[in-house]
Amino acid sequence: MAQLRVPGPTPCPPEVLQAMAWPMINHRGPEFKKMLFDVTDKLKEIFQTRNDLYILTGSGTGGLEAAVVNVLSPGDKVLSVSIGVFGDRWANIARTFGAEVIPLNVEWGKAADPEAVKDAIKANPGIKAVLVTHNETSTGVTNPLEAISKVVKGAGKLLLVDAISSLSSIDLPVGKWACDVVVTGSQKGWMIPPGLAMVSISAEGWKAFEKATMPRFYWDFGKARSYLERGENPWTPAISVVFALSVALDILLKEGIQSIFDKQKRIGQMTRDGVKALGLSMFADEKYASNTVSAVAASHGLDVSKLRELMQSEYGIVLAGGQQTLGGKIFRIGHLGLVTEQDIKELLAALKDILPKAGFSP
Amino acid sequence: MAQLRVPGPTPCPPEVLQAMAWPMINHRGPEFKKMLFDVTDKLKEIFQTRNDLYILTGSGTGGLEAAVVNVLSPGDKVLSVSIGVFGDRWANIARTFGAEVIPLNVEWGKAADPEAVKDAIKANPGIKAVLVTHNETSTGVTNPLEAISKVVKGAGKLLLVDAISSLSSIDLPVGKWACDVVVTGSQKGWMIPPGLAMVSISAEGWKAFEKATMPRFYWDFGKARSYLERGENPWTPAISVVFALSVALDILLKEGIQSIFDKQKRIGQMTRDGVKALGLSMFADEKYASNTVSAVAASHGLDVSKLRELMQSEYGIVLAGGQQTLGGKIFRIGHLGLVTEQDIKELLAALKDILPKAGFSP
Repeated sequence: MAQLRVPGPTPCPPEVLQAMAWPMINHRGPEFKKMLFDVTDKLKEIFQTRNDLYILTGSGTGGLEAAVVNVLSPGDKVLSVSIGVFGDRWANIARTFGAEVIPLNVEWGKAADPEAVKDAIKANPGIKAVLVTHNETSTGVTNPLEAISKVVKGAGKLLLVDAISSLSSIDLPVGKWACDVVVTGSQKGWMIPPGLAMVSISAEGWKAFEKATMPRFYWDFGKARSYLERGENPWTPAISVVFALSVALDILLKEGIQSIFDKQKRIGQMTRDGVKALGLSMFADEKYASNTVSAVAASHGLDVSKLRELMQSEYGIVLAGGQQTLGGKIFRIGHLGLVTEQDIKELLAALKDILPKAGFSP
Repeated sequence: MAQLRVPGPTPCPPEVLQAMAWPMINHRGPEFKKMLFDVTDKLKEIFQTRNDLYILTGSGTGGLEAAVVNVLSPGDKVLSVSIGVFGDRWANIARTFGAEVIPLNVEWGKAADPEAVKDAIKANPGIKAVLVTHNETSTGVTNPLEAISKVVKGAGKLLLVDAISSLSSIDLPVGKWACDVVVTGSQKGWMIPPGLAMVSISAEGWKAFEKATMPRFYWDFGKARSYLERGENPWTPAISVVFALSVALDILLKEGIQSIFDKQKRIGQMTRDGVKALGLSMFADEKYASNTVSAVAASHGLDVSKLRELMQSEYGIVLAGGQQTLGGKIFRIGHLGLVTEQDIKELLAALKDILPKAGFSP
């Protein structure tokens, strides 16, 4: 019952792993072309958008860099709505490429307040874009993106969304919520290994692209667009991960996205209820608790390192620790992608056994 | 006898493909740490260097972008020694990020002349770095890198090398030839799928890094260095391709790099001799003919599209065409990585059969 329960990479179904082992083909030949068109169309179904969509070879962070450099210019003011490590990282990327970042930093464990976003935009009318994390992996919080979108788009600003650990697991209708650039990563809810970032861009995003002057080459959406017209990537893609994606998308679409979102809600609730029944408490504001990753506070003498070590050595269950200032203060359970209620039941049973051995005495 | 004979991706050994299907592990856990250290050490053996070396998730072009943004600043003068499509691409990357590129463009099919490089440096004493392609995939030419290095390093300039389609196949002692930044890509002589770029950086390269101001985040060698100290990548890497690399490196090192270089020489010569025996002629200057990719001129009525189509449909052999202005004028045979003399024999037999059907009448 070995289980990888970090918030990415996630376990992969056997047929996905088999696809990873398919022999190489020419990435500029007819077979790959067919697959690339097919996979792009299916991704759009799950993104719930008709916007252009590209598959980039890189990690999710590469996708975040791509989002920034394709629509912004040095000196542009951007509002960074950060609720954790990954929100801060995105702000750093924007700053690195010359954006003037206005931070709206929310206490870790809480979600962003759409009213606060509204006020920040009012106070800084010159901002061009707003960076928002849909699901903050470091704290286990899902932002109220629909409400934030209304505020951002209502003010006529570009909305850039980090949906790395939400898309395909948590409802995110990219079209309906008017998200201009949306980034996700292969090793999360998509149930495939890391190596790809998938990004969508709206018509308004393209308008910004035309004027954006941050330097871009590898991540250039313009190059991605012109190559995709002929069924290719500009640079040699991670072919095997595209194979895996083609198989995983069929599994996801067969299950149906609403059914997956519902399952994730049940799994999230079950995890939180189970953890609390053991005497632990959640780190995050439960009103905005993520259904893909749970952050649990280390209370009552719990030694997180020891917990993780024993969970792995005695049960083969791999949990994540806290990042940066949260090191030692929380542990995180990834429950996205390939996960069943039975997996969570086993995980909770293992936790019950290990907690006292890791110093926990409530 | 289906054969992928493009200059990357190359076919992969069965045990490499099996490794691609290994289940996911935590990229910030002890198993991956051990593998990352091990793989990095073995890569240094094949790079023949003790320089720092990093594994980046991206294509070879991503590696070229990384090389530029880590050691250069906007306004820096760089000499671009370009002998084909990939040399031109690298110059474009440098230009995109603000370098002042002084082009030394060599007629396609020919190698760069070290004396011309010397003269160009003399004429432009302010240049900071020289960009050189070791093996130009688009024309099938290998540059005399040792002699070029003497000229560049003799003048005290940084030497940046695109070794994407040479490293592990053609002798390139990175340490001895004092190459400051060297880039290669996984889907070439390494016999593994695309998804990784591997880069080395010298002490002199690090000095330049400290002063370089081009914006860098995803590709930042400084971040790669600090994370590798604890056995991690800064961002989630393409874990499966690292698995594959760990298996492939053992195969390569067991064979021995000198033995591989020798085999590549035999394979290259055999390909050129065989092609000429069929009445075709090589596109490239044979003195500098590449031992990893052969570019063959389309003469005597040969229709390259038809040739490639029939080679694939009738023999399952996939060849590459010409790029940019070479479209329709050459076809290319990739013979690097997993390739045997028997493979080339079969390829030549197939060519002999198909050539007349593709309009070739010498």
